[in-house]
Amino acid sequence: MNFLEERILKDGVVKPGNVLKVESFLNHQMDITLMDQMADEFKRRFSGKPINKVLTIEASGIGIACSVARVFQVPMIFAKKSKSINIDGDMYVAEVESFTHKNTNQVIVSKKFLSPDDHVLIIDDFLANGCALNGLISIVEASGATVEGLGIAIEKGFQNGGKILREKGYHLESLAIVDAMDAETSSIQFREQENA
Amino acid sequence: MNFLEERILKDGVVKPGNVLKVESFLNHQMDITLMDQMADEFKRRFSGKPINKVLTIEASGIGIACSVARVFQVPMIFAKKSKSINIDGDMYVAEVESFTHKNTNQVIVSKKFLSPDDHVLIIDDFLANGCALNGLISIVEASGATVEGLGIAIEKGFQNGGKILREKGYHLESLAIVDAMDAETSSIQFREQENA
Repeated sequence: MNFLEERILKDGVVKPGNVLKVESFLNHQMDITLMDQMADEFKRRFSGKPINKVLTIEASGIGIACSVARVFQVPMIFAKKSKSINIDGDMYVAEVESFTHKNTNQVIVSKKFLSPDDHVLIIDDFLANGCALNGLISIVEASGATVEGLGIAIEKGFQNGGKILREKGYHLESLAIVDAMDAETSSIQFREQENA
Repeated sequence: MNFLEERILKDGVVKPGNVLKVESFLNHQMDITLMDQMADEFKRRFSGKPINKVLTIEASGIGIACSVARVFQVPMIFAKKSKSINIDGDMYVAEVESFTHKNTNQVIVSKKFLSPDDHVLIIDDFLANGCALNGLISIVEASGATVEGLGIAIEKGFQNGGKILREKGYHLESLAIVDAMDAETSSIQFREQENA
């Protein structure tokens, strides 16, 4: 079991409806030491890739993405969810459905920050059905940049987002893959990973 | 002139309507080295304060707040803007008006993460009229915790948020205070600061 799986067992809370709450250390209150430890692990798993940009989506991916950008010594870009009157015309746009919030957001990245020369590592805190990740991938590919990898903190392995992305050939690394959860017994079953 | 003021002059863009765009290094694409440099400066300006939590608001404050939490070696909490079906009952709530997005958001922090024992440094990227900052202050004070300081990257000194907060006695440190901008000449006038 790796450090993130141990932390999820210690401080995560399983709720009915396959909800895993990690708000005490990952996506509301953030343990910066853990973020940095995750970043080091992503650095190891994506070593040798010519990554020059880290991309995430607001809001809860930003903390991890900052730590990852630091270890790769590259800039971090976060895709924005809402339309702002301050946003200029030239944006890449993707539609992203949110199951948590039961709505669809336009996700935008300025064209200034992605170009065919870029090699992008996409980072997010959660992967379930893959809507957010697919939105970010479509933005990177629309820019002509290369998706070098997808780095996720917690993947819900019982939903199909990760499976589809791996089948498409993306290099997807999830630090913890939850294959099953049970709210009644508060149990969590992690997938064994070769390189974990 | 300090490092942030220099960077704003180099890469910031002044737009009509007193809009200062810093999206190439601060709030869309983020320069992590700059975030860390700002964090070191906040550490210096708030030295000796018994800070044990850093609080910010999603989304563009998160990057800076992570760097600040790292140098203080404390957890970071970000207040959330939207209502989520995943949020439990026990939340501190503040109403925050957004001039950028022309709407009002409920801003929430779980009661689990703030208590009367806490000494909080509030961090954000921008201060103009102070709506977001006042929302965060009201949440900290509702919890019984102490506001040890307010750390801002860029203050619009020609709006009154900062003035009112200083008059109320808060220890407010803004790394760059813009007293005037002119979109036609692309000029920015910074306020001189004693400790800068």
